[in-house]
Order: sequence, then structure tokens, then C-alpha cells
Amino acid sequence: MIYFVTSNEGKFREVKEIAKSYGIEVEWLKREYLEPQGNDLEEIARISAEILAKEVREKFFLEDSGLFIPALNGFPGPYSSYVFKTVGNEGILKLMEGVEDRRAYFLAVIAFWDGERVLTFKGRVDGRIAHEMRGERGFGFDPIFEYDGRTFAEMGEEKNEVSHRRRALEGFFKYLKGLENL
Amino acid sequence: MIYFVTSNEGKFREVKEIAKSYGIEVEWLKREYLEPQGNDLEEIARISAEILAKEVREKFFLEDSGLFIPALNGFPGPYSSYVFKTVGNEGILKLMEGVEDRRAYFLAVIAFWDGERVLTFKGRVDGRIAHEMRGERGFGFDPIFEYDGRTFAEMGEEKNEVSHRRRALEGFFKYLKGLENL
Repeated sequence: MIYFVTSNEGKFREVKEIAKSYGIEVEWLKREYLEPQGNDLEEIARISAEILAKEVREKFFLEDSGLFIPALNGFPGPYSSYVFKTVGNEGILKLMEGVEDRRAYFLAVIAFWDGERVLTFKGRVDGRIAHEMRGERGFGFDPIFEYDGRTFAEMGEEKNEVSHRRRALEGFFKYLKGLENL
Repeated sequence: MIYFVTSNEGKFREVKEIAKSYGIEVEWLKREYLEPQGNDLEEIARISAEILAKEVREKFFLEDSGLFIPALNGFPGPYSSYVFKTVGNEGILKLMEGVEDRRAYFLAVIAFWDGERVLTFKGRVDGRIAHEMRGERGFGFDPIFEYDGRTFAEMGEEKNEVSHRRRALEGFFKYLKGLENL
């Protein structure tokens, strides 16, 4: 059993479901934690876990993710959640008006405190910023993130097969299973 | 004598100059420090100072500031520096295209560690987002922030008489002088 620290129930459910397919039991440690400002998502997750490890004695992991747009110098990046809450999808579409290079990627980082140190696992999915919002499912920037012709919000459940979070969790859970087999 | 913690030399010089006019001596403690993510600038400055107080034993203060645009739900707010580095003044102008409510304000917060606890002092200056960049002086969002008809970048030295940072420092230095008179 391992704790997943988040205040977001939707995130917990998604992670628990994926963990199950690896035979790993995940418990919800529902709480806020301090996240530092910074440009590097991996560094942010690592430091968050190091600080939290002073309070939580058991093994735990947390997850941080963001949308990165190279033509906007990586914006909104580590502050994706704040940017979504303030200017939203409309804001990103406005910033991308007239921009030809529409490449974008979602990045997820897992930071795992194993009782002695923090290990990180990354997952990334590459796509493009659509020219308008499409699709009713998903959340956040899903309606403007195009993967293989469809937006994440149009893909529904299928999104979870290819998502950045899925990929980061796969690496992490494979690592955990490897440990058990030692 | 009191320490001002910043890695930004320009900020230190400006603060030292204002302190001098109050007869207060400020020394530069040049270092980075952890700033938490969050929506509330005062809370961010307070927590930064509390964390730093575990490492710095002497009295010190630090400063954090941001540009807040109500029509954009406060964006870029606490992440002004990151937003400036990524999408810049052009990005803000693009987000404000077609937006009628152009009100904006700069907010500065001083967090002062007095050896026992953290006190905060705020300064605010109200203005508007210009329709284009104007002026060659200042830095950051100064070319698009209009105060009384001119942008901060057009005002040069005069900006420092009315700026948010000046106002926050005034409150802080008056407080310090009051203590000395006790």
C-alpha cells in the first residue's frame, strides 16, 4: 500500500484505477501541500515531496502536470492550473492567434518518497493547440489540446490510454513492481 | 541595519535609495529563496519569509510584487515575472484585445522578519493597460501600465515617487522609525 497525496478527488480516482491494473493498492492522503514556484516541473515536484516528507512518515507520491507551448516559451507550463483558472482556454487561443507553430505537450511528473529519498518519473504526450475548442469531455486544457487529429476532450476515455499522467504512472508502477520482484 | 533579501541588484539599489531618505541603512543579502505557489501575494511573501527565517537569524525583509488585471481574473498576478519572461507585454496586449475594462494595478508586499514573527506591508498603484507599448524606461510591464495618462516606462524617475514598491516601503520604513522612537 502506498499513499497518493492530492486534494483533488478526480485525480485520485484516475490514479487508483490505473494502479489497480498493476495490482498496486493506492490510498488517498487528502491534503494540500506547499509547491514552490519555478520553471522546472520536475524540480517543483521533487522539492514539494522533500518538504512534505518532513511531515509524512510513510511512503507517498504526488503528481504535478502542465501544458507547455514552445511558441510561447513554455507558457503556461508549471502555472497551468492558475492560467486555466484566470484566462482559460480562450486566453490560450487568443495568445496563439496568428502563431504558426502550434506544437504543445502535456508533461506529468510523479515524485515518490520512498522513506529515504525522492525519485521522479516523467510522462509526456505531444500534440498541437487546436484553432478552437472542441469536445465536451475531460477538463482543463483538454478541449484545445489536439492529439492525432482529435482533442483530448473529444477522446473521452481513450485519452487515459495515452495521457502524460498515464505514461508517468506506468514508469512509476513498473518500478514499484520491479522492487517487489527483487 | 537591516537585511534586504533579493537576488536582483536593481531592486536592491532602488530599495537602498528609498531607505536612505528615511535614515535607514539597508544591507544586501544576495540569495535566492523558496517562494510558494498561491493566489495571494501577501500569503506568498509571508510564507517565504517564515521559511527563510529558519536559515537567516538576523532581521530581514523581502519584497514580492505583481500586476493584477481584474478583467483577466487577476492574471498575471503572483506569476507576473514568469508571464513577463514567457509571453511578455505582447502577450498581455493580445489578451486585452477587445476588452473594454482596462483597469489594472500593481501590488507590492514587504514581508519583514523581526526576529520573532513576520509582519507584512502592502503598496498598490492603480492604472490602466495601454493599447500599445509606450516609453523606453523602466522594466517589465512598465511600457503597458498607464498611470495618469503616461505609462510607467514614459515616466522614468517620476515612477518611483508613486510606485507600489515605494508605497509599501514607506509604510514599512515609517513603522521601523516608529519603533526607534519608542
